[in-house]
Amino acid sequence: VILTVTLNLALDITYWVDRLNVAGTNRVRDAREQVGGKGVNVARILTALDVPVLATGFCGGAVGRRVAEDLLSSGIEQALVEAEGETRRCVAIVAGDGTVTEVTEPGPEIQETDWNRFLEAWRSLLENRPIRVVVLSGSLPPGLRDDAYAELCADADRRGIPAILDTSGPALTAGLRGRPAVVKPNRAELVEAVGISMDSTAEPAAWLPSLEALRKAGARSVVASFGSDGLVALTGEGAWHAMTPAVEGNPVGAGDAVAAALARGELDAASWPERLVEAAALSCASVAGSTAGTFDPLVFERTLRHVALSELSP
Amino acid sequence: VILTVTLNLALDITYWVDRLNVAGTNRVRDAREQVGGKGVNVARILTALDVPVLATGFCGGAVGRRVAEDLLSSGIEQALVEAEGETRRCVAIVAGDGTVTEVTEPGPEIQETDWNRFLEAWRSLLENRPIRVVVLSGSLPPGLRDDAYAELCADADRRGIPAILDTSGPALTAGLRGRPAVVKPNRAELVEAVGISMDSTAEPAAWLPSLEALRKAGARSVVASFGSDGLVALTGEGAWHAMTPAVEGNPVGAGDAVAAALARGELDAASWPERLVEAAALSCASVAGSTAGTFDPLVFERTLRHVALSELSP
Repeated sequence: VILTVTLNLALDITYWVDRLNVAGTNRVRDAREQVGGKGVNVARILTALDVPVLATGFCGGAVGRRVAEDLLSSGIEQALVEAEGETRRCVAIVAGDGTVTEVTEPGPEIQETDWNRFLEAWRSLLENRPIRVVVLSGSLPPGLRDDAYAELCADADRRGIPAILDTSGPALTAGLRGRPAVVKPNRAELVEAVGISMDSTAEPAAWLPSLEALRKAGARSVVASFGSDGLVALTGEGAWHAMTPAVEGNPVGAGDAVAAALARGELDAASWPERLVEAAALSCASVAGSTAGTFDPLVFERTLRHVALSELSP
Repeated sequence: VILTVTLNLALDITYWVDRLNVAGTNRVRDAREQVGGKGVNVARILTALDVPVLATGFCGGAVGRRVAEDLLSSGIEQALVEAEGETRRCVAIVAGDGTVTEVTEPGPEIQETDWNRFLEAWRSLLENRPIRVVVLSGSLPPGLRDDAYAELCADADRRGIPAILDTSGPALTAGLRGRPAVVKPNRAELVEAVGISMDSTAEPAAWLPSLEALRKAGARSVVASFGSDGLVALTGEGAWHAMTPAVEGNPVGAGDAVAAALARGELDAASWPERLVEAAALSCASVAGSTAGTFDPLVFERTLRHVALSELSP
């Protein structure tokens, strides 16, 4: 089983309006709500790939109950932990011209008692359920210390369970100290973590020193996702660049598809070249999918045969 | 007990942002949510006036549960009826410059079974609880026939319980056929209902033919609220204009304060001049209050002595 951890779960509310009348009243033409957060996208993708998955994270209040209901109806097994505060909502207002205005709540203020309750539940899951891989995704809710992910990664590492960490900012840099098996920054997250700005036209190999910096800080492997420029990986076994054909669509959630593929690769003990080809193809298929957390299975199958994988010299 | 009926209850969510970044991401600085809808404002005001009140309406889904919780914590006794659909949310995004952008959901699609369940609960309340006045406020949720209020007014009328109707459009014009004791349109609602446009500088007496048209269509009395131009009333006992001193503040909810005062006047069998003075003063005090459904008690007491009431010749 792959355990996905989404500490800052969200209820994603999408409103469609004809046009957004600022400083006026807008009647919603259509609305949809579903549980969101990067870890939930990973769980959805793994479920669609028939990989057994268990979702944990904080949920609180009436919004938290709605999130739990929606996970249930998505067929995702859950082991959520109650928080005192209220789960956050992320409202996206989509206008007729396609522009999206997002208004996001910060999330519940996590108390020390909430975190202790989470750690207890998490350790019980690692000990009593056949958890083979954990995926830790997204931002930390307010109130949690920056090293929350480090604590979870170290816990998993102590039990020989590989942890895939996909976050940004201080949660990423502090998280590296927990020795995650893989970290998956995108370009902006990598630049922020390493503090080196790079020309966006730089060759894939030019990024390797930045990836190496994250390995030196604690990550065993680093897979950086560069959108249409593919993936660059640096592992104990070598360095690679995986490039896919261009694809049209919505890039939101593509990074979560990469994390999902890397988690499945850990589960199957696949070789790094295999994992990277699958991650690149699933990322493309996610861009072609209708929303974050979905992918187009035909694009996935087709792209698997067209990923150009090249080994880099570190 | 005054029974307030809010068929289209709402969860009002207010988000404060520094500035609204259209087509971008906005982090919420502060958020508040509370149950809303015009009838809830009436119930809040009556509760603050120490008048016993009971609130009914449809609630559904997770948002409906949140609405019920919030009514409970506001100390308002409730007799809500479950609907299949989900209670609507009204999101107000307040920017640092004070502009408010509202995004409102339409409300649950009311099924015939929902409506029958409501009618049964409503009739049971009228028969088994000491309901002395009913106040019917706001828009009808989708799926309900325009004459829903007419049915409720006729029910109340049959039992000798006066109904105060505060709505607009087809729900108002169809509702008149139920012979409500009082209808309380504002200027725009009156113009829409009667189909006569008036010069906004018209003398109060010039509006009396429009009020008379609503009486001919079924209303026993009409109290029209004209904002800073005061109230104009046409009843079986005469016609009046109640004028108050100017007051600074937020006019949202002032009409609900008028409806609350008229309901209390019915309960106390106060004379029309007494009711109108109280309604005008409470309306001013509501404008001076912090939000819709609240009023400033000092402004209320002071304004009671400064309402200029003049009798009009119909």
